[in-house]
Amino acid sequence: MAAADVERLIRQLAKLPGLGPRSARRVALHMIQQKETVMRPLAEALAETAESVGVCSQCGNIDTTDPCEICTDPRRDVTSICVVEQVGDLWALERASAFRGRYHVLGGVLSALDGITPEDLNIENLIPRAASGAVSEIILATNATVDGQTTAHYLTERLEGCNVAITRLARGVPVGGELDYLDDGTLITALASRKEL
Amino acid sequence: MAAADVERLIRQLAKLPGLGPRSARRVALHMIQQKETVMRPLAEALAETAESVGVCSQCGNIDTTDPCEICTDPRRDVTSICVVEQVGDLWALERASAFRGRYHVLGGVLSALDGITPEDLNIENLIPRAASGAVSEIILATNATVDGQTTAHYLTERLEGCNVAITRLARGVPVGGELDYLDDGTLITALASRKEL
Repeated sequence: MAAADVERLIRQLAKLPGLGPRSARRVALHMIQQKETVMRPLAEALAETAESVGVCSQCGNIDTTDPCEICTDPRRDVTSICVVEQVGDLWALERASAFRGRYHVLGGVLSALDGITPEDLNIENLIPRAASGAVSEIILATNATVDGQTTAHYLTERLEGCNVAITRLARGVPVGGELDYLDDGTLITALASRKEL
Repeated sequence: MAAADVERLIRQLAKLPGLGPRSARRVALHMIQQKETVMRPLAEALAETAESVGVCSQCGNIDTTDPCEICTDPRRDVTSICVVEQVGDLWALERASAFRGRYHVLGGVLSALDGITPEDLNIENLIPRAASGAVSEIILATNATVDGQTTAHYLTERLEGCNVAITRLARGVPVGGELDYLDDGTLITALASRKEL
């Protein structure tokens, strides 16, 4: 087989999400064949990012500064906090330039099946943020899954008494969506939440 | 969006084969969240492998030694050379323990469309190896594609006068293959090359 170094590299690559043993071999080979242009720069980028990047102690975002750039940006609206499950969700909202307030990353969702309890999530930090007086709205942007909704319900209860409006993302037909291909749940929700034109 | 370091890492990951912008983001996030167990070890493995691994000057295989382990293994049959397109093909044959001779990696195939000529491939090295007198058989294990077969034909011509047997891999129904799902070309070849039981 390949040399021990290469085998170890392949094993490590194969553990990354979306990569299996076969694609890991392909990636490893590609990198070895382009050592100077691909492999060394990636090694450096990984080492540097591991050094520079950390978790924001305020919102749970990932950034090179703590608090993160979003938490310290004076142009952003301090009165609303958007609660998301994962940093990837925050990135998605930022890519869409959908939101100009601040975020709070839970780091997961409550799940009886996986044994995830409120203590495992970044919730204790959220309560004082919501109760600080500066915040007037908490948007619960957890996923529209069973676990995401359970978490949103739990947070609604926990945030009672914080004197903030609690909202959630609208449900309905996604932009570009064709009715014929949508699931029943979405259709029922979209019809029930219909809006006057 | 994410910090500049993270963005750069995502861009580099997205260029790897099989990864796009979305999966690169997922991989980057996974690595950042498991910095000590995933990200740093991978950075080290990449840097170390980039340092240690090189191309075998004899056969074109990738290894930490030159000549490579296969070329220097005294237990391997020196009388036969298996010619493959890529190092990945060599790995596949080694995984299957299909061959106990030595290899020759071309580094690609002839392709009029992509402008790949014999000068772009590791062919000039093969002729003296074949003509050395020690070798009695050259197995052309290029892919069963148009370009692979063109390359095999070209090599057959170039190896004329080297006084070696030139063979190619058998064509037919793959093990586990169901006739109903096979293409016409394979069925025609398999029927034409049928064997008496």
